Amino acid sequence: MAPKKLQIAAAGLGRMGKRHALNFLDRTPRAELVAAFSPDPEELQWAEQHLKPYGVTLYDNYDKMIEQKGLDAVVIGTATSVHAEEAIKAIEKNLHVLCEKPLSTDVEVCKDVVAVAKKHPHLTFMCGFSRRFDASYRDAYKKVEEGLIGRPTILRSQTCDKHDPSGFFVDYAAWSGGVFVDMTVHDIDLTLWFFGDEIVPKSISAHGVVAVQPGLKKYNDYDNAVGIVEFYGGKIAYYYNSRMMAHGQEDVTEVIGTEGKVSINLNPQQNLVNVYTPAGITREIPPHYYGRFEYAFVAEANEFTAACLDGTRLPNKPRNAVKAVQIGAWLQEALVSGKQIHFDETGRRVEKASL
Amino acid sequence: MAPKKLQIAAAGLGRMGKRHALNFLDRTPRAELVAAFSPDPEELQWAEQHLKPYGVTLYDNYDKMIEQKGLDAVVIGTATSVHAEEAIKAIEKNLHVLCEKPLSTDVEVCKDVVAVAKKHPHLTFMCGFSRRFDASYRDAYKKVEEGLIGRPTILRSQTCDKHDPSGFFVDYAAWSGGVFVDMTVHDIDLTLWFFGDEIVPKSISAHGVVAVQPGLKKYNDYDNAVGIVEFYGGKIAYYYNSRMMAHGQEDVTEVIGTEGKVSINLNPQQNLVNVYTPAGITREIPPHYYGRFEYAFVAEANEFTAACLDGTRLPNKPRNAVKAVQIGAWLQEALVSGKQIHFDETGRRVEKASL
Amino acid sequence: MAPKKLQIAAAGLGRMGKRHALNFLDRTPRAELVAAFSPDPEELQWAEQHLKPYGVTLYDNYDKMIEQKGLDAVVIGTATSVHAEEAIKAIEKNLHVLCEKPLSTDVEVCKDVVAVAKKHPHLTFMCGFSRRFDASYRDAYKKVEEGLIGRPTILRSQTCDKHDPSGFFVDYAAWSGGVFVDMTVHDIDLTLWFFGDEIVPKSISAHGVVAVQPGLKKYNDYDNAVGIVEFYGGKIAYYYNSRMMAHGQEDVTEVIGTEGKVSINLNPQQNLVNVYTPAGITREIPPHYYGRFEYAFVAEANEFTAACLDGTRLPNKPRNAVKAVQIGAWLQEALVSGKQIHFDETGRRVEKASL
Amino acid sequence: MAPKKLQIAAAGLGRMGKRHALNFLDRTPRAELVAAFSPDPEELQWAEQHLKPYGVTLYDNYDKMIEQKGLDAVVIGTATSVHAEEAIKAIEKNLHVLCEKPLSTDVEVCKDVVAVAKKHPHLTFMCGFSRRFDASYRDAYKKVEEGLIGRPTILRSQTCDKHDPSGFFVDYAAWSGGVFVDMTVHDIDLTLWFFGDEIVPKSISAHGVVAVQPGLKKYNDYDNAVGIVEFYGGKIAYYYNSRMMAHGQEDVTEVIGTEGKVSINLNPQQNLVNVYTPAGITREIPPHYYGRFEYAFVAEANEFTAACLDGTRLPNKPRNAVKAVQIGAWLQEALVSGKQIHFDETGRRVEKASL
Repeated sequence: MAPKKLQIAAAGLGRMGKRHALNFLDRTPRAELVAAFSPDPEELQWAEQHLKPYGVTLYDNYDKMIEQKGLDAVVIGTATSVHAEEAIKAIEKNLHVLCEKPLSTDVEVCKDVVAVAKKHPHLTFMCGFSRRFDASYRDAYKKVEEGLIGRPTILRSQTCDKHDPSGFFVDYAAWSGGVFVDMTVHDIDLTLWFFGDEIVPKSISAHGVVAVQPGLKKYNDYDNAVGIVEFYGGKIAYYYNSRMMAHGQEDVTEVIGTEGKVSINLNPQQNLVNVYTPAGITREIPPHYYGRFEYAFVAEANEFTAACLDGTRLPNKPRNAVKAVQIGAWLQEALVSGKQIHFDETGRRVEKASL
Repeated sequence: MAPKKLQIAAAGLGRMGKRHALNFLDRTPRAELVAAFSPDPEELQWAEQHLKPYGVTLYDNYDKMIEQKGLDAVVIGTATSVHAEEAIKAIEKNLHVLCEKPLSTDVEVCKDVVAVAKKHPHLTFMCGFSRRFDASYRDAYKKVEEGLIGRPTILRSQTCDKHDPSGFFVDYAAWSGGVFVDMTVHDIDLTLWFFGDEIVPKSISAHGVVAVQPGLKKYNDYDNAVGIVEFYGGKIAYYYNSRMMAHGQEDVTEVIGTEGKVSINLNPQQNLVNVYTPAGITREIPPHYYGRFEYAFVAEANEFTAACLDGTRLPNKPRNAVKAVQIGAWLQEALVSGKQIHFDETGRRVEKASL
Repeated sequence: MAPKKLQIAAAGLGRMGKRHALNFLDRTPRAELVAAFSPDPEELQWAEQHLKPYGVTLYDNYDKMIEQKGLDAVVIGTATSVHAEEAIKAIEKNLHVLCEKPLSTDVEVCKDVVAVAKKHPHLTFMCGFSRRFDASYRDAYKKVEEGLIGRPTILRSQTCDKHDPSGFFVDYAAWSGGVFVDMTVHDIDLTLWFFGDEIVPKSISAHGVVAVQPGLKKYNDYDNAVGIVEFYGGKIAYYYNSRMMAHGQEDVTEVIGTEGKVSINLNPQQNLVNVYTPAGITREIPPHYYGRFEYAFVAEANEFTAACLDGTRLPNKPRNAVKAVQIGAWLQEALVSGKQIHFDETGRRVEKASL
Repeated sequence: MAPKKLQIAAAGLGRMGKRHALNFLDRTPRAELVAAFSPDPEELQWAEQHLKPYGVTLYDNYDKMIEQKGLDAVVIGTATSVHAEEAIKAIEKNLHVLCEKPLSTDVEVCKDVVAVAKKHPHLTFMCGFSRRFDASYRDAYKKVEEGLIGRPTILRSQTCDKHDPSGFFVDYAAWSGGVFVDMTVHDIDLTLWFFGDEIVPKSISAHGVVAVQPGLKKYNDYDNAVGIVEFYGGKIAYYYNSRMMAHGQEDVTEVIGTEGKVSINLNPQQNLVNVYTPAGITREIPPHYYGRFEYAFVAEANEFTAACLDGTRLPNKPRNAVKAVQIGAWLQEALVSGKQIHFDETGRRVEKASL
């Protein structure tokens, strides 16, 4: 008898939602995509062509979809504003949930979702921080864990998008939570991974500029920002995010320890080709994050599936998804307010004067 | 109704055969692996565990397998010595065939297979030269085709394996056809791609040494060899193959044109990690060819499937598979005999004196 | 008749002083090293052997040296604490001065020196920020000036020394002015170069840890620190300095503009050799800053000489030497106090609340 | 008393001659350029301006120059055709000689020079193979000598010039001895260094094309050529030379041993700058060999000087200069004749049939 496959539904068929749906359809051997939902007629039309022929039932109503008989799990790739509600509903229908990051741009809402998940410990619940599934980050982590760099002390990490003149980033800023919550949250998640998720922030600074997307100002957001998080225990992470890269996606991380360093993607590249012309030697780089992280998303789908079916351990814990958003929100506050933020050793916010 | 999937059988479940079987099972959405054959009980035992549960019928008899009802295609990954016979049998059973390279180490046998394939033009027949499916080679080819380097003139290409002290390569040499037929055949195939498959060799030189595998001498083979093929029309390809790399697989190609150059994999790498220690800055590289070409094999399986189902064009023609083996055999002859080989403009061999 | 050569004296024969002396002796064709001073008998002994035979008069008294007849200029490479006094004395003796950075760790003292220099406009006075003479930085600057990256907006720059377990850095911290004044001052100078020396800081944050040199704590200094300077006009510079590199000297700069980016030394290297072993592919990097900047110091000596003899323009202005130390001191203050610093548009310090 | 400086004269003030003269004038502290000769009035005019003011006596007659009183040495950078004669004359005047490579394009003439030098063992005589003075090659050699790569077995080396559309290379071909003698001679010299100068060629093959300089055909020369030299003792060197690089000078060497590999300049670069634009990430490379080897020439001048003054050992022996030209001439013969060349173990040429 054929082994049981995970019956999964995809909620949301936008840019990333489509990719999740196709990854579960085609590149996750132990899962079977059986349902898909979108509130958007255009996205449903796409699904008519690309999903329905392969046995996927389509819905324009999320609630109905999660009632489909035999369903085991949902992957949520809708707009961030509905992540939390949909995740909670799915959990309460006894479904495993893989939810795109962030659970919410509101930390309290994130906590609510995780609290609900915690009450259903037999269910797999994961917020998808894809870099934890990337082969390069994993190799770097393994090396750090083996002691190759001594005690990790400084982490530099940047998430930098190719400049998009379409205005997309401006509209997006209306509800993204700001650049530190939307972009740097990935780098913060890496920090929790490499520094340990028990670390406690001591102080936070951030500065930003609006260089190429003046429309961001009305949303109090920035297109280039730099932030520093100092942690108790003698560790510092510093971050850069940008929507202004001329050359493509450039997501770089360095972890510097007392006895060595690892870098990940310091020299981004599209592939293994170099071109030699009178201009010099040139290599191209991926235009978008999916060009960099495609196989991480595939690994995520497969490992989530294995966790649902076999109970295997996943690389990220739900509460880190909250903590990363929390730190991102503090960075964003420091950025917008122009004020440093301080914490005591228990993680409680304090005025600097009172320390 | 679900679209038709290609019903495919896998012949041979050795190192590469297993990978083909699993790629068609798990990573080729439009194909369905329905049967597998191996003459080897151990391999069949592996298949009991990894293929049978997913509905794959197992055979210890190739002829029986290709009679399985509903079968559309066979992927042949058995020992080279039976490639040709199995390919011909499959074609005559009206099956599409994807055959691992080479069709045979004997040029005449290669020709026979291609002749049979030619008589069945409605069938897809492909000898798998995986580099034609590699994203980096394809990008390089596109750039060359667009004229970025002017007229391609010199091609340097090497296939270099990590040193394997187990003696595997010695045993393998007994029937591999020699290093130019076994390894450099890939580089020759690239030459036919980048220079055009109509090119005619003018003269061929080759030299080799036995440096780390003395056992090779009894098979007249070498563990390091260098060869040059000069073509009519003012083009030269030169090749290096080695079984002696300390660091891993290093397959490099450069195509040098009158106005520029492309290089592919000049700086091999396992992933995007660099490690900084007192020794310097280090990156690891893939230990084996599959580490370098895994996704090329996946693309090969998918594109072969599409070609069978939709009649789409494949990147390599059967007769190139013959021509590549032919040139490889000449290089091997030049290597073993210690004599240069010459051809007239029609491709006929001549003594140098007679030119 | 032979062209006039600049008669120059070297003050200080410690690590960097020796190099200056030798550069003027051997690698500055238009200068003639005629005198050298050190208060240290060991250094004078070295000079007996390496300088005196070539006609260099030695002194253990700075004042006497600068009275030597025919002297045109002095290069000052003594301890920072005496830079200012020696520079002023030399100027008042009508000598051109090349002074190692910084003029002083005290901003007011720096200003005094520059004020004296300003009163002697016929003399060449330069504080040596060697990176302005480095071929790579110059090439990057030229590209930025030509508009290749649009409007420079973000500058990331780090000065990272190889870990030195000898305790040298601890002793040094007693009078170095702190890491931002001692190390990052170079990166700040680069900022003034690439962003223009009229830029006005808006706010400054800094955070640091003591990771490998616990002795630094008694001097309120750090072995790893990160700082951000936000400038009016929509520009940000962020800095990292470290005394903890396992692998060697790693001084990296990136200048990110609205239309592109330049990086300098992102991939440090000792030379053009790569080593391939079972560990992977490795390249070594320079252990010290002189390994990275040797030729910049030679260019500095030669261009200073030409400026003295011909009145040619030098790449850095004295007041930038003050401004760089000033910004370094603010970063250090932000680091030690754990408080952000704010400025109004005229550069006057303000409390954040009052903005 | 000032230590004795080497009194040296420069013969030839063309492209490379000028550089030698200036290097001895300005960048060789222990030498003093006291005389210079050129038969060319334009070159002498240049010398009036750049050498004479510094005390260099100018000559339009080589014989007169070498009679100048007090002269110790001559650096010969004239046309190759007069190297030998001038070198012999200088030796016979009891002068040390640094002669640009090659001594002659005629092997017998090379031998004559070396024979004369041998009769004057108290004199330093060196043919300048500059790569032996390059820091990267030296580091690579040191690593090989220390056993890092096991037994060196395969050497790949290329000398590739930037395409020069001016016709210079065509005129040059009239007397250059051909590309293997003119360009690859450097790679052959490296081979003698890394493999040991006792190695004996076993067989030689070469192939070439004329791709961009059709005028070369009248001189029986090529603008791209590939050659292989197999040596007794299980070693192979293979070479590529080209006058067609679009991107600049690209001189690369790899030495592959039984336990590792070193590469030198596999990734050529002008400096440490990378530029990031919508086209990707680009670095420039040196346009000419002097951009790559400038500091090697400076080291050569300084070490030659030290050898003359102190009797220190130089890295290359005169007879290697003959052997390199000899092997280059054989490669050129194999190239032009289209025939492989064979040798017995004593180095005597044989017909293949007779082996």
